[in-house]
Amino acid sequence: MEIDIQLVPSPPNSNILLNQTVVVIDILRATSVMVHAMSKGALEIIPAATVEEALQMVKVFPRGSIILGGERESKKIQGFDLGNSPREYVVERVKGKKLILTTTNGTKAFHLVSSGKEILVGSFFNIGATAKRCLELDRDLLIFPSGDEGSFSLEDTICGGMLIELITPKWTTHFTLTDASRCAQILYQRFKDNLLEAFHLSRHGKELIKRGLGEDLAYCAQNDITDIVPEFKGGVIGVPLTPSLSPGGRG
Amino acid sequence: MEIDIQLVPSPPNSNILLNQTVVVIDILRATSVMVHAMSKGALEIIPAATVEEALQMVKVFPRGSIILGGERESKKIQGFDLGNSPREYVVERVKGKKLILTTTNGTKAFHLVSSGKEILVGSFFNIGATAKRCLELDRDLLIFPSGDEGSFSLEDTICGGMLIELITPKWTTHFTLTDASRCAQILYQRFKDNLLEAFHLSRHGKELIKRGLGEDLAYCAQNDITDIVPEFKGGVIGVPLTPSLSPGGRG
Repeated sequence: MEIDIQLVPSPPNSNILLNQTVVVIDILRATSVMVHAMSKGALEIIPAATVEEALQMVKVFPRGSIILGGERESKKIQGFDLGNSPREYVVERVKGKKLILTTTNGTKAFHLVSSGKEILVGSFFNIGATAKRCLELDRDLLIFPSGDEGSFSLEDTICGGMLIELITPKWTTHFTLTDASRCAQILYQRFKDNLLEAFHLSRHGKELIKRGLGEDLAYCAQNDITDIVPEFKGGVIGVPLTPSLSPGGRG
Repeated sequence: MEIDIQLVPSPPNSNILLNQTVVVIDILRATSVMVHAMSKGALEIIPAATVEEALQMVKVFPRGSIILGGERESKKIQGFDLGNSPREYVVERVKGKKLILTTTNGTKAFHLVSSGKEILVGSFFNIGATAKRCLELDRDLLIFPSGDEGSFSLEDTICGGMLIELITPKWTTHFTLTDASRCAQILYQRFKDNLLEAFHLSRHGKELIKRGLGEDLAYCAQNDITDIVPEFKGGVIGVPLTPSLSPGGRG
């Protein structure tokens, strides 16, 4: 078994992916939005690569059944219902709805890893449950930070490091950590008592603060507010019914 | 000014490179060999991408004027004079000679960054002098770890982090650190009191130990044994005559 993390979001080897569990992470803010929306009762999420694709998709569904969300340059897209702050995705807006979401980094990442054996949606919101699910699946693991416009992202990698820190003491079969996994784990250890400090140091965190979205940083740094682990399958993100979910359903 | 480090050795944007100082790092062991060989009096080094290329090149030069060095799978190549351990590159073998070198990761890296404004050869052996040279050049900086067969390398990135740690307190103009640079700096801070611990954790370090080359790890972890900063220009690595060199020449 190997635990790896892809520090830069380039396309992974799709043959190797076939046997890997993949965890996609985009803390600021796509996977935080996804986990939050599903914990508040969204039925499913369709990640769209472009704004045009999202606008085309929305036409297929009956009015009222669908929410259109996302951002470009961190701002809500014209004509969309919601932006890319998890705080917007509350029960009143999303319960019982399908969500079409397009963001700069996060939604693209799912398409890059689409041949993974399982593709889980990770964030600090569901980090404990994600670790538990990875342990249940007991497969080679690829953590896939969505990055920052193609570059390394500090906050995504730290979340990946926390996942590694939670998993490794409980992994019962032999496993190895790649150099990249050790890097992520060390970054997490450096910031574990103050995740927000890391968000304030990161380029993307600074940009959100400049745009008046600083409250999202503290919000997205919350750990374990839900135990759902959404999964991307056949182009759609949903919550599979697995024994890892608490009785009574979500969150 | 920006200080960046490329955590994975994919080809950088060559338009941006034109205005950047690049520092190539391959601690285990190509750039350690290069710096060591030049500090012991090698005239110049020609990095060859393949074994075949190295064998072709050697025919061009008079016998006795040239040394052929390098490795595949960490071992000396059949018919070559020297392997890839800096300890082999002593005065008696290299003084007054040209060196043709081919290694798995390091020599390829120079070709990937060949459009850089200046391309410096960095290692722990010359880390202080490399930092000083970067400060003199006072340009956007790209640190380029050669990586481990295309993947992230812990030991190269830690050396990059040390370079950042030495440079940033002395940089007089405004500068920014990318998320990747912060990552490298944090990794260095974690291991600065015990670099060898990091080498023992790294995949490449473990491989060298398994092959009986463990002594190279401690050797390559030595800081500041020379003040030369070799530079790659026109396909050749040499030591330019700059004011940063100590009077009386090398080492």
